[in-house]
This record gives sequence, structure tokens and C-alpha cells, in this order.
Amino acid sequence: MAEKGIYDIVFHKIETGKVKKLGNGSWLELQEIEYIDPNTKAIRKWELCKRKNCTTENKKNVDAIDIHAIIREVNKPPQIILVIQFRPPVGRYCIEFPSGLIDDNETVEAAALRELREETGYHGKIKRISEPICYEPGLTDSLTKVVDVEIDLTSIENINPKQKLEDDEWSLQVLKIPLDNLYDALQKLQQQHSEEIWIDSRLYNYAFGLNSAKDIYVVDN
Amino acid sequence: MAEKGIYDIVFHKIETGKVKKLGNGSWLELQEIEYIDPNTKAIRKWELCKRKNCTTENKKNVDAIDIHAIIREVNKPPQIILVIQFRPPVGRYCIEFPSGLIDDNETVEAAALRELREETGYHGKIKRISEPICYEPGLTDSLTKVVDVEIDLTSIENINPKQKLEDDEWSLQVLKIPLDNLYDALQKLQQQHSEEIWIDSRLYNYAFGLNSAKDIYVVDN
Repeated sequence: MAEKGIYDIVFHKIETGKVKKLGNGSWLELQEIEYIDPNTKAIRKWELCKRKNCTTENKKNVDAIDIHAIIREVNKPPQIILVIQFRPPVGRYCIEFPSGLIDDNETVEAAALRELREETGYHGKIKRISEPICYEPGLTDSLTKVVDVEIDLTSIENINPKQKLEDDEWSLQVLKIPLDNLYDALQKLQQQHSEEIWIDSRLYNYAFGLNSAKDIYVVDN
Repeated sequence: MAEKGIYDIVFHKIETGKVKKLGNGSWLELQEIEYIDPNTKAIRKWELCKRKNCTTENKKNVDAIDIHAIIREVNKPPQIILVIQFRPPVGRYCIEFPSGLIDDNETVEAAALRELREETGYHGKIKRISEPICYEPGLTDSLTKVVDVEIDLTSIENINPKQKLEDDEWSLQVLKIPLDNLYDALQKLQQQHSEEIWIDSRLYNYAFGLNSAKDIYVVDN
């Protein structure tokens, strides 16, 4: 699968043109960009929303990190650490992976460990960092990396975890959910709080993947 | 897990205030919204990007659908149908679930089957529809539903699938990848085309969930 040549994907060289600023806030900017359709040579336009002051500009870096933070204890099922917080754009509380923007001159590793500490109080150890992945590529240029982190509950740093929240994170609360039951737990939370919460799409898909795997890998169970 | 009372989540009642338009395009609008911080009673501001003319306004409906389209054939591993297309906001090709906006007065079901037909040529049968999930709730009010679809390759409709793409989907191509190898296949595609593609975050998390499950459910394999 995905060996060289199996997927015969055509990549056109795309020439980009003018950028028109349609709106400007302190954090976000609305733009209309032009590019040349390589088939018809027509000039096409697309609207997008950019985070300002982020490092995505050169398309090699990322502006945010999402954290998959797993607690593994002997003789216990692994648990994942999630956050729930009020999100003004949707006017509800959302259940999400811990996440955050990368500060200027900060590495992906440092940002992930810092955000995890600030949002949940836990100290983690990095296991793996993904390639950049795009958040909603029809709407924004936002790129993130997923950082897999393991949390050692026996470590002295993790005995009494304390959040250090920023002003705009006043509503953020921590959830710990066993991984082998994540999908069902999220469904139940959604049902119990059907007027108050949404589940984030990345978390939903991760949980759904975990759950679907039961049909694929454990067919005879 | 997630039984009543297990998760002691505090939901504040949030009063929303003024909305200021910071920018206006044909498709997107940049806004600054105000809300009252229930702890300090301070007025807080948040910037967001809204899709115009979408049905999310009342927070009960959704403006988009993502399609998990699976081909199940006897004696073959299940395959998932994905799309790859040029996405102007990130200036690259992105691998994503088939997806699209719901038309006015269109049901979620109809939108999912229509978008699947248009983007991939395949006719599907709906198995399940998720609750609304949020796309990037720090940046936009965009909500989607995940529609699980099964594709019967023996059906006469699916013998010679033909895309019917819209003008702005000129670059869209179809990929079929075995589910049990999805994560590795995406990693290989990313490595082979490291300057041309990004993987979408929802797809990444789904694939990563599927793959992680091997450690959780099939410990002794």
C-alpha cells in the first residue's frame, strides 16, 4: 500500500498571485488569495483565515501542537488526558486534546510539555512527534503537530498536579478517560450534556478509530 | 466511565455580548465577539471566522459533513475512500475524508451521499451519523457530522464510478487504502511527497486511533 507508483497522484505546480486583506483583528486576518488554475489558466480566488504572528508562513513550520497524553500504570488500562473548556466561537464547552500555540523561538517539544503542564498540571515525557498536519485546510492555513506524551504517575512531579492557566483559559478542566472505552465515554458525555458540549473533531476521529479497530483487528472476540 | 457524576464538570452560564464585524468576504466573515467571564464579570473578547450562509447559526445544525466511506468485500480487507486535492489556504495538496458543505434545505444524509458521488463517483449506503463535532473551536464556529457509509462494489451503480466535480474541485483525486494499513500508508505518502502534501488532522487522528488500537486490544499479537 502506498508503495511508489501505487498511487498515481497528479500534483500540479500552482502559481499563486495577489493577496487581498479583507479583515484584520489582533489575532486573526481574513484574506482573499489568487492562484492560477493549471488546467484552464484562469485566475481563481479563495478566502481564508490566518492566525497572525504564527510561524506557518513558510509552510515548513507549524503554529500549534496537539497533545496525546497517556497515563500507563502497571495492571491498569491506559488513560488519556483531555481538557474541556468554553470555546467562544461555538458558544459551548468543547472536549479536546490539550493543545496550544507555539511561542516565538520555542521548539515543538518545549511547547508540548509547557502546554501540558499549564493546562493539566502533569509533567510528560515525549514519545513521538508527528509530521505537520492541517487543521481545516479549506478555511485556514493552520498547521499542527501531534505530540505523543507518556505520563509517569509515580514520578514525584506528578503527585499533586496543579494547572497554571492563562486568563483566557479560566474555564479549562481536566478529564482522564480509559483509552479502551474512550469512544463510548465521549458518546455518554455528549448525551448527558447535550445542550452544553461538543466533541472536537480530531478527538472524535481518534476515539472512533480506536473503537473501529475492534472490528478490524479483533474480529473473533 | 462517564457515568453520571463521575466527571464533575462545571458548566458556567455564559452571557454573550456585542458582535463586531472585522472583515467580510463572499464566503467568510471575521468577527470579534464579546462575552462576560462568569468568574470576574469582566468583558472578554474573542476573534473568530464564520462561514457565511451556513446553517450553524442556531448551534443545533451543522454546516458540513465528513464521510467515512468503507468498501467491504468478502475475503478482502476493508478499504477506505479518501480524497486528495489542492487546498489554497495551505498551498499544498491535502489528503482528507470526502467532505462538503450542506446545501440549503438539504438533509445531512442527502448531502453525504451527494458529496460522495460528486467527489468519488461511488454510491454509498448510510450506516451511521454522528452528533455534531467541532472543526477548530478556537478559530471558527464550523460544525460537522461524520457520516459512516458503506460502499457495495457489486452494486451496478458502482461498476464504473465517475466523479462530477465542481469548478473549484478541479484538482480532486480519489485514493483507496486498506484500513488495516491506513496509518502506515499515510506516513509513506507523506514521506514520498514531503514537499507536496499534508495529511488532514481528522484523518490523521482516525488513522492513528486505528493503529494505536493494536497496542490496546491485541496486546499479545
